[in-house]
Amino acid sequence: MKKMQQLYEGKAKKVYATDDANLVIVDYKDDATAFNGLKKGTIEGKGVINNKVSNFLMQMLEKHGIPTHFVEQLSDRETLVRHVKIVPLEVIVRNIAAGSLSKRLGIPEGQKLGCTVLEYSYKDDELGDPMINDYHALAMGLATREELDTIAGYALKINQILGDYLKDANIELIDFKLEFGKDADGRIILADEISPDTCRFWDSTTGEKLDKDRFRRDLGNVEDAYQEILKRLLGE
Amino acid sequence: MKKMQQLYEGKAKKVYATDDANLVIVDYKDDATAFNGLKKGTIEGKGVINNKVSNFLMQMLEKHGIPTHFVEQLSDRETLVRHVKIVPLEVIVRNIAAGSLSKRLGIPEGQKLGCTVLEYSYKDDELGDPMINDYHALAMGLATREELDTIAGYALKINQILGDYLKDANIELIDFKLEFGKDADGRIILADEISPDTCRFWDSTTGEKLDKDRFRRDLGNVEDAYQEILKRLLGE
Repeated sequence: MKKMQQLYEGKAKKVYATDDANLVIVDYKDDATAFNGLKKGTIEGKGVINNKVSNFLMQMLEKHGIPTHFVEQLSDRETLVRHVKIVPLEVIVRNIAAGSLSKRLGIPEGQKLGCTVLEYSYKDDELGDPMINDYHALAMGLATREELDTIAGYALKINQILGDYLKDANIELIDFKLEFGKDADGRIILADEISPDTCRFWDSTTGEKLDKDRFRRDLGNVEDAYQEILKRLLGE
Repeated sequence: MKKMQQLYEGKAKKVYATDDANLVIVDYKDDATAFNGLKKGTIEGKGVINNKVSNFLMQMLEKHGIPTHFVEQLSDRETLVRHVKIVPLEVIVRNIAAGSLSKRLGIPEGQKLGCTVLEYSYKDDELGDPMINDYHALAMGLATREELDTIAGYALKINQILGDYLKDANIELIDFKLEFGKDADGRIILADEISPDTCRFWDSTTGEKLDKDRFRRDLGNVEDAYQEILKRLLGE
């Protein structure tokens, strides 16, 4: 597999073409951003950890019947994935109130929600990724009714699988963000990453934050938190 | 029917108890507010017009099978309505992009939406009536799944009936806000008002705004616009 020209550079990853049009290489960076890019920094070793953690969780989800973009880990920071057209929705799944939901709805952080909450944001940096609902997504042509149903079904199933799995590692899955893509056959598959950058992980016993909120909120021990997740999940 | 103590004063209406626990009297004011109360003013004669227009439209909707709180108009500003417990949701129905939707999603005002959009806001002045979706409403216990389905069904049906009716008066129904309540039997019925305060009405031919946006945006001829709606709908 030949790594070819860079197709895209995001906040946390670069994507490269390969000699197979259906495959691309993702290269994880240590760069960290928050608040729609207003806060910038570096979390040393994050790229390596997120690459490993995301690949580990994607493979676990595949075993449970969730189609993902994962193909093969190429190096500490690089992974071969299926080339997809990203559905321009951030799919957020919430079990416990935190972050923007707490602020917007006045629900104290840490309060268990009455039921699992699914939210969509329209992926548009200039607009600040505004929250939308199914009707907006349909009206804007971001996805079809069928695709939205598929996405919602996968998101809730992933929440179940992931939440159960993490419990055994003494990690509470507070909330997380997913992105889906459409492959060459128009099939919806899980893309992007699942990592401490995109999830809120709290230690089940102490409630300690083991995710990007340590960076967002200047809580210190940012690298240690990422390392701890790697250790609990992959034993590294 | 005896008008008794005031139960509530809102931005545009007062509500009074009666000697029947199942009935209350709504009294429409000329007070106008916008931007969550930040802008305040008076629109002379608005109370009378909104009372008449809302009663007229509610009776029209009743004929088409939508249960409403309307009982009887008592005077120019006063109407007897069924006492309900308001479901704390603003139900917004949008046919054409305008206002907050245009701003949030970058869709030019006046652009026809790909499909009718239904939005919910959580009625909470302190939080600024944040937009929520079905999952939030369920998680917060604002309504049951069954109630949300009933509300969505009514809202879309009302949009159809109202839109068709207004077309004949050369008025384009851009968007509107509804509120629903639960009566003593737990039945969901349409409450609040339907008026130039709660709808965007544009002249079908000229696109002229005939609603509260004239007040919000200092467009002038505010009273004339309200008067025009009364004339086109009730011939007064």
